[in-house]
Amino acid sequence: MRKPRKKKVKSKKSIVNQIPGKVVYVGEKQTQDTLIEVFEYSKDFLTYKKLAQVEEAFAYKDSKNIAWIDFDGLNNTQAIESLGNHFGLHPLLLEDIVNTRQRPKIDVYEDYIFIQIKMLYYDTQDVLIKEHVSIAFGENYVISFQEAESDVFDGVRERLQNAQGRLRTFKTDYLAYALLDAILDHYFEVVEQLAEKVENLEDNLFTNNVNNQTALDIQELKREIIRVRKAIFPVKEVIARLENGSHKLIEARTKNYLRDLHDHGIQVAENIEIYREMTWGLMDMYMSSISNKMNEVMKVLTIMASIFIPLTFIAGIYGMNFDHMPELDWEYGYYYTWGVMILISLALVIYFKRKNWW
Amino acid sequence: MRKPRKKKVKSKKSIVNQIPGKVVYVGEKQTQDTLIEVFEYSKDFLTYKKLAQVEEAFAYKDSKNIAWIDFDGLNNTQAIESLGNHFGLHPLLLEDIVNTRQRPKIDVYEDYIFIQIKMLYYDTQDVLIKEHVSIAFGENYVISFQEAESDVFDGVRERLQNAQGRLRTFKTDYLAYALLDAILDHYFEVVEQLAEKVENLEDNLFTNNVNNQTALDIQELKREIIRVRKAIFPVKEVIARLENGSHKLIEARTKNYLRDLHDHGIQVAENIEIYREMTWGLMDMYMSSISNKMNEVMKVLTIMASIFIPLTFIAGIYGMNFDHMPELDWEYGYYYTWGVMILISLALVIYFKRKNWW
Amino acid sequence: MRKPRKKKVKSKKSIVNQIPGKVVYVGEKQTQDTLIEVFEYSKDFLTYKKLAQVEEAFAYKDSKNIAWIDFDGLNNTQAIESLGNHFGLHPLLLEDIVNTRQRPKIDVYEDYIFIQIKMLYYDTQDVLIKEHVSIAFGENYVISFQEAESDVFDGVRERLQNAQGRLRTFKTDYLAYALLDAILDHYFEVVEQLAEKVENLEDNLFTNNVNNQTALDIQELKREIIRVRKAIFPVKEVIARLENGSHKLIEARTKNYLRDLHDHGIQVAENIEIYREMTWGLMDMYMSSISNKMNEVMKVLTIMASIFIPLTFIAGIYGMNFDHMPELDWEYGYYYTWGVMILISLALVIYFKRKNWW
Amino acid sequence: MRKPRKKKVKSKKSIVNQIPGKVVYVGEKQTQDTLIEVFEYSKDFLTYKKLAQVEEAFAYKDSKNIAWIDFDGLNNTQAIESLGNHFGLHPLLLEDIVNTRQRPKIDVYEDYIFIQIKMLYYDTQDVLIKEHVSIAFGENYVISFQEAESDVFDGVRERLQNAQGRLRTFKTDYLAYALLDAILDHYFEVVEQLAEKVENLEDNLFTNNVNNQTALDIQELKREIIRVRKAIFPVKEVIARLENGSHKLIEARTKNYLRDLHDHGIQVAENIEIYREMTWGLMDMYMSSISNKMNEVMKVLTIMASIFIPLTFIAGIYGMNFDHMPELDWEYGYYYTWGVMILISLALVIYFKRKNWW
Amino acid sequence: MRKPRKKKVKSKKSIVNQIPGKVVYVGEKQTQDTLIEVFEYSKDFLTYKKLAQVEEAFAYKDSKNIAWIDFDGLNNTQAIESLGNHFGLHPLLLEDIVNTRQRPKIDVYEDYIFIQIKMLYYDTQDVLIKEHVSIAFGENYVISFQEAESDVFDGVRERLQNAQGRLRTFKTDYLAYALLDAILDHYFEVVEQLAEKVENLEDNLFTNNVNNQTALDIQELKREIIRVRKAIFPVKEVIARLENGSHKLIEARTKNYLRDLHDHGIQVAENIEIYREMTWGLMDMYMSSISNKMNEVMKVLTIMASIFIPLTFIAGIYGMNFDHMPELDWEYGYYYTWGVMILISLALVIYFKRKNWW
Repeated sequence: MRKPRKKKVKSKKSIVNQIPGKVVYVGEKQTQDTLIEVFEYSKDFLTYKKLAQVEEAFAYKDSKNIAWIDFDGLNNTQAIESLGNHFGLHPLLLEDIVNTRQRPKIDVYEDYIFIQIKMLYYDTQDVLIKEHVSIAFGENYVISFQEAESDVFDGVRERLQNAQGRLRTFKTDYLAYALLDAILDHYFEVVEQLAEKVENLEDNLFTNNVNNQTALDIQELKREIIRVRKAIFPVKEVIARLENGSHKLIEARTKNYLRDLHDHGIQVAENIEIYREMTWGLMDMYMSSISNKMNEVMKVLTIMASIFIPLTFIAGIYGMNFDHMPELDWEYGYYYTWGVMILISLALVIYFKRKNWW
Repeated sequence: MRKPRKKKVKSKKSIVNQIPGKVVYVGEKQTQDTLIEVFEYSKDFLTYKKLAQVEEAFAYKDSKNIAWIDFDGLNNTQAIESLGNHFGLHPLLLEDIVNTRQRPKIDVYEDYIFIQIKMLYYDTQDVLIKEHVSIAFGENYVISFQEAESDVFDGVRERLQNAQGRLRTFKTDYLAYALLDAILDHYFEVVEQLAEKVENLEDNLFTNNVNNQTALDIQELKREIIRVRKAIFPVKEVIARLENGSHKLIEARTKNYLRDLHDHGIQVAENIEIYREMTWGLMDMYMSSISNKMNEVMKVLTIMASIFIPLTFIAGIYGMNFDHMPELDWEYGYYYTWGVMILISLALVIYFKRKNWW
Repeated sequence: MRKPRKKKVKSKKSIVNQIPGKVVYVGEKQTQDTLIEVFEYSKDFLTYKKLAQVEEAFAYKDSKNIAWIDFDGLNNTQAIESLGNHFGLHPLLLEDIVNTRQRPKIDVYEDYIFIQIKMLYYDTQDVLIKEHVSIAFGENYVISFQEAESDVFDGVRERLQNAQGRLRTFKTDYLAYALLDAILDHYFEVVEQLAEKVENLEDNLFTNNVNNQTALDIQELKREIIRVRKAIFPVKEVIARLENGSHKLIEARTKNYLRDLHDHGIQVAENIEIYREMTWGLMDMYMSSISNKMNEVMKVLTIMASIFIPLTFIAGIYGMNFDHMPELDWEYGYYYTWGVMILISLALVIYFKRKNWW
Repeated sequence: MRKPRKKKVKSKKSIVNQIPGKVVYVGEKQTQDTLIEVFEYSKDFLTYKKLAQVEEAFAYKDSKNIAWIDFDGLNNTQAIESLGNHFGLHPLLLEDIVNTRQRPKIDVYEDYIFIQIKMLYYDTQDVLIKEHVSIAFGENYVISFQEAESDVFDGVRERLQNAQGRLRTFKTDYLAYALLDAILDHYFEVVEQLAEKVENLEDNLFTNNVNNQTALDIQELKREIIRVRKAIFPVKEVIARLENGSHKLIEARTKNYLRDLHDHGIQVAENIEIYREMTWGLMDMYMSSISNKMNEVMKVLTIMASIFIPLTFIAGIYGMNFDHMPELDWEYGYYYTWGVMILISLALVIYFKRKNWW
Repeated sequence: MRKPRKKKVKSKKSIVNQIPGKVVYVGEKQTQDTLIEVFEYSKDFLTYKKLAQVEEAFAYKDSKNIAWIDFDGLNNTQAIESLGNHFGLHPLLLEDIVNTRQRPKIDVYEDYIFIQIKMLYYDTQDVLIKEHVSIAFGENYVISFQEAESDVFDGVRERLQNAQGRLRTFKTDYLAYALLDAILDHYFEVVEQLAEKVENLEDNLFTNNVNNQTALDIQELKREIIRVRKAIFPVKEVIARLENGSHKLIEARTKNYLRDLHDHGIQVAENIEIYREMTWGLMDMYMSSISNKMNEVMKVLTIMASIFIPLTFIAGIYGMNFDHMPELDWEYGYYYTWGVMILISLALVIYFKRKNWW
């Protein structure tokens, strides 16, 4: 019937009675390998390194170049804690980095800005994946934390390597923008997938090709839209605060890009709302489709019963065994009776035709 | 059955992993010819030219007169890029100009104001057309970008040529206002068409002239209203920002006109809301109409069955073959039986009449 | 069946491609006679004149007394234009005065205040009339524009003539207030009529006195409420701006009256919302009423069929022509059979009674 | 059937074409006796008087003690006018005092504060009573106007007499607070009654004890909640303005009490919203309950018809009169037939059992 | 059937006509023992005491160390009053401490801050418990008031004893934060339970495993969500005011923690909204499920009746007793008849198969 849903709720680890600021990973990817990649670059050069130990990343804090440290694997809480402590991130943020249930937010500190956002994409089996991403950036570093390696940032990596666009000439704020932009671009793909699902359902309903599965599909789509909406909605506000605040890390020339990003955030949220509204409307259509079907069933029953019940009655009459039933003795009684029956059924057929029931 | 919908979603080109500011056209009119028209005018004179090359437009940047450059054909991204760069438009704006999925917005720069808006009209086949229009205006130029040539701006062209109204004596802000005004005037026509569709559907429902198609028509109308609403709603805010901000390009005397435009924006949005509410209400009416029909079907069945089933039973009684059935031997048994049957059916007819089912 | 609705939409004159500020009347009363009345008054005297020519009104602009010029007949666009120009009204306002589709608004200019509002009342045939009223007032004049003569302002006229209340001692702002107050008083009457309609429909639904017409009546009422709401809602904001702004034309002593008016505006809007909510709820009641009726129909059918079908079966049994059917030869077989049939039907009757279906 | 509703609408007196500020009573209690009670008190003493003439109250305006004048009987407009004029209340307020349809509001004047609020309680016949109360208080007086004598203020009276609490030591602002507090306390009682009604209806629906009356009860409850909501909602805002404004009459030490009152206002409004939401949900439950019942009816019909129609058919077969029907001559044909019929009915019974229809 | 609900409403003690500030306990736990525990601590030491008399707690007011006084048992109003008076709490607060119906709020006084919040958890019988908690904290004390002893604060107690985290080194504001944090952590557990209930219901609906109980379960869940929502929603605002205000008791270093708490508040509220929306959607699914079932029932009836009614009619024909019925004399008439009947039923079976009814 329907695809079995992952039991998300039960597997949750309890976070009750924890010390605030204690770093506990609550996501699903418990056995994920840790992967630490660093791009160090300035306008003129770029080096790329895969780090074996998190400690190797500590040096970048004092480098004159910009370093993008991409940390994949939130289950390695120890490495995250030591990295975060070295770069001076607030303990509560370290807790948030690994708390995959944390909602998108932005926390502005004096020396760095911390952003949390959800990465959304459909994987190869067409399952909606929702990843928890944290981005912290200071004067000369950008650290991104992901649950697992993904190809969402591939475009950014390429542009860094090709020295394309403005990436290499702008500061860390633009790199952070570029990462957010890459994530939001994927939102549009998710929205398009949702749009397609809505249209497929609508087409099924339009062609009256509905069954019990249709209601389940609508409900599944509702749930998916609710999940996407929950991940996407707070993003608008996060970007707005990034765009509107004045912080030494945000350069004036980056603001135009952030405003553009903000527009994208609003646009994707508006689209979600539209597909949401249309999906909610599908249930009404489904109900009217069921009612129409029942109407049709009832009409068949009513027509069959209305025509044959009177005829059977007439046949019953002449099946009676009274001694004195003059019609029975008529020579053409049997044929007369057939005639009456045919007339009655014709009259009823015409009546139902007139009512447009046929 | 229903008109096949254009598969909007599938044909979309991917914009994922693009460099921000890269100019990629994503609309449908891929083979559109590029058309560049220029009106150069001051209070005293007006010249009109059709440009073969976009480079011919560059000179207007330094002209003392006002130039309106109307650029039709967003697929020609190269020309747009060179034109935009010459007039100093921000690269992100060039990306937005050709991104037909961009929502209406206004971006205010020091030397120019950039507005994006959707042009809405019904074409000759009564299909709702939604065009992406961008208007950028500076001290002495207004550049408008459209997907394709349309007659929405014809009124403005005429008034320019006839030196009618204030167009020739006011600055570029008034020309930009006039273009927006022309677009909003067409919104009212779209709203009137929607109003008519709502009323037609209502009339069908009022006369109980409903069938399965009706639900589809309601859903189609819902979708159309959602699309129109999405295009029109942000416009209010765009105009409000144009009206309320203080920018050297916006003259005091133009503000009254912008306020009037703002009023129109609110009015058209209010009307959309009203037709939206009425359309959503139609589904309820449709459902009640179906229920009424089913009631009617059930009544026919119930009346037919209730009358003839007892009669058939009586006929069945006297069709039994018991040796001792005194009634069978009565001389008028057969007639008595008919009498009883007529009495029973009369009683039932009266009963149903009383219940107002007949 | 239902009263034919006026085809409002089709008769609309196109306003597309008009010059902004061009004065075009779009209402229905094309053949209305123009009526210009002037009340000139100060604390001590009052004169009343009916003007034949609009030019006669020009003199009042420089009078030391207060003049109320009441202009009825918006189809006379020429007179309105010349009057408006003489009194220095902005061209866009003249366009709005005759554009009956304009929504309620207030425009504050340095020397005068311009208010637009809808007059609502039920005419003698109980049809809801919606008139477009504009009021412009300056230092010493109040000009009111109406589609046609109406008795809404009769109370104000009377009080002027009787020197009752504060009308003659206050300035033009109080006269404008008095006119608005008269219009809002009629809103309450409209709300009362709507209340009555809601209650009548509710009473019908409560007494189960419903048919197909009921759904149409509910929909008609919905439409009427939507229309009234559209006309009344912006009025709150208009009055609030009049009350809260500080303009040389608005005296401090009038502010209390405007606040009171504002309260009335809120009150009438709240009432509309309440009747709206109740009307929307009526559809639910109607649906449940239909369902109840269907339940009743189904019960009758089920009871009739359930009782007689088994009995007919038994009669059928003993109508079979097998050679060896011992019961047929029993002396009291026929009576036994009747006994069984009566027992079965009694059992079923009791069963249905127990289920509360009877 | 249902309790007859009082025809509120029809009995309304028209307030159209009235002079603003004219004092016209529009409530129902036209024959109410006027009752004027005065409590004059300071920290050390208290006198209580019942006044025969309103003029006796005039002296309290200049008293050094605090006077609470409780005026019951809004139909005595003359007395209210002379009392109000003596204490310097604005004419519009006098109009509002007797206009029982006025919504709750607060008007702050330099020398006094004027509050209007609805008193809500269930009378001994469990009918919801909604009384219009006005409270005006200045430096040394509090005047309260009620439609009729009620026991809502009894607690305040008692505390005044017993010198309990802070009443006698605080100023008039605290007395006004105490009166408002007494009114809000009764709101909680009303909310509890509504809660009980909601729960009773829910219990009926839970036990499937529904009939046509249930829908009416739900609608009645909806109407009652709408009425209560309309009366209670504006109160929050009234108290907030009292709490937040700074006026010489409001002492700092009273502010804590006003904040507490504000909390109560929010709480009662929240509760109303909750019961409103639950009541609206009841209609859904009711509809599902009806559908369930219909399902049950249909199942009985289907089972009866499905079992007996095939059996009757078989009986019909062997009731045919063909010359050559071999089964008829079999010795045990009759018994075989019974066997087949029993097998068929058993099969159908098992089928329906499997479908959980039985 | 369904679990009996506690009759919350009826058992409420009347709070009408009370003196404001009078301390009256209105909760259910009337016979609760009073339990007073004190943790006195500084960075270096910690003592724990169980107090027999409330008077023993008075000394902590002037201690140099921080004291956390945990008071369990709101029915002991006398002890609360004397404790509150000694620590200088406003009388209205004492009233609120024992008024379990009070909504969450924060009151900021010069020397102390007073917070009220609801503690939510599922007890061992899976019943949702809602406890009224008040927290007042000044320079060197934190007093918490609970209805009864619970284990919600156990984590805080442990951390105090183990000198873990920041608890012992921060001031009273951090202890208050820690208590609030412990309460909010339990909100997440409640939300997870609700999530599970929603999913269970959804799974039932998906597998079509519905009956009348399902509607009741949905309604029960709705009620539970409404209750939780009412308790949780005001908390966001309470924390926001704590975070944003500037008060001498709130240290800068605690603000980060409060912001984090605020985030949690928003997150839990968002989750509640999502489960609320999904629960409301369940009713639609339930209705469509019922309609589907009815459709199925109707199809069985229609198929059975449509097939056998015509056959019975044919059998009835040849059961007639006319003298001249040629078919009866045919040698194979009986077999021909069977053939016709089989053909008819086959045709109908194919017809219904084609319609996908089978």
